[in-house]
Amino acid sequence: MQLTQWTDYSLRVLMYCAKNSDRDTPITIMEILERHQISKSHLTKIVSFLSNTGYLKTTRGRNGGISIARPPRNISVGEVVRMTESNFEIVECFNKKTNSCSITSTCKLKHLLQNATNAFISKLDQVTLDQIC
Amino acid sequence: MQLTQWTDYSLRVLMYCAKNSDRDTPITIMEILERHQISKSHLTKIVSFLSNTGYLKTTRGRNGGISIARPPRNISVGEVVRMTESNFEIVECFNKKTNSCSITSTCKLKHLLQNATNAFISKLDQVTLDQIC
Repeated sequence: MQLTQWTDYSLRVLMYCAKNSDRDTPITIMEILERHQISKSHLTKIVSFLSNTGYLKTTRGRNGGISIARPPRNISVGEVVRMTESNFEIVECFNKKTNSCSITSTCKLKHLLQNATNAFISKLDQVTLDQIC
Repeated sequence: MQLTQWTDYSLRVLMYCAKNSDRDTPITIMEILERHQISKSHLTKIVSFLSNTGYLKTTRGRNGGISIARPPRNISVGEVVRMTESNFEIVECFNKKTNSCSITSTCKLKHLLQNATNAFISKLDQVTLDQIC
């Protein structure tokens, strides 16, 4: 069981920006690259995604860069993971389109796995970005 | 976030065998194939694995087949998932060998994700095979 690399890196970027939210100068992509071994193209996509979804602010120009768009104390880890982890189909039958299991209608495993996934996410909902960086 | 197909199918096979544990005649691979759309070679590997790990009994010959080796009420779903899900490294840094994250020593996210994973498994530990089939 794994979260996607997209989620892992998005959290790292947000944690870095949250940790440096009091700084006067914007954070640069190069600075995050030096801290984390993420490819530049991958990091650029993540920053763009987090900017489009309202988590980061980006400013252009010579003194441009990235900053966190919302107070870290108002961003729960669960909220981020829900957004970045597009696939929360813990097993095949969670996706009606691709499900091939013939016992879905009577299966109690699906309900159990949904409960377990909720318990996982619930733990992440209880913690905000400022508490982990 | 997904469990492996190996875990998904192992659970389906065990649930089928648990459901038919009172039957006089052994269960056949063909019968499970008819019930679930799993390839025969994949199913054979799963049955062999579950047999080697003491969850299934297999008997050879014309009237041979598969049966559950332990009472379903004594097999928790969590126990099965722990065994089949070899990779419980929810993010990269859970594996010391492949971890490339430079902030691991001070990172609180790892601890949070471990707690969340424990909460997930804990839900599965509370339910036994006989309760879901």
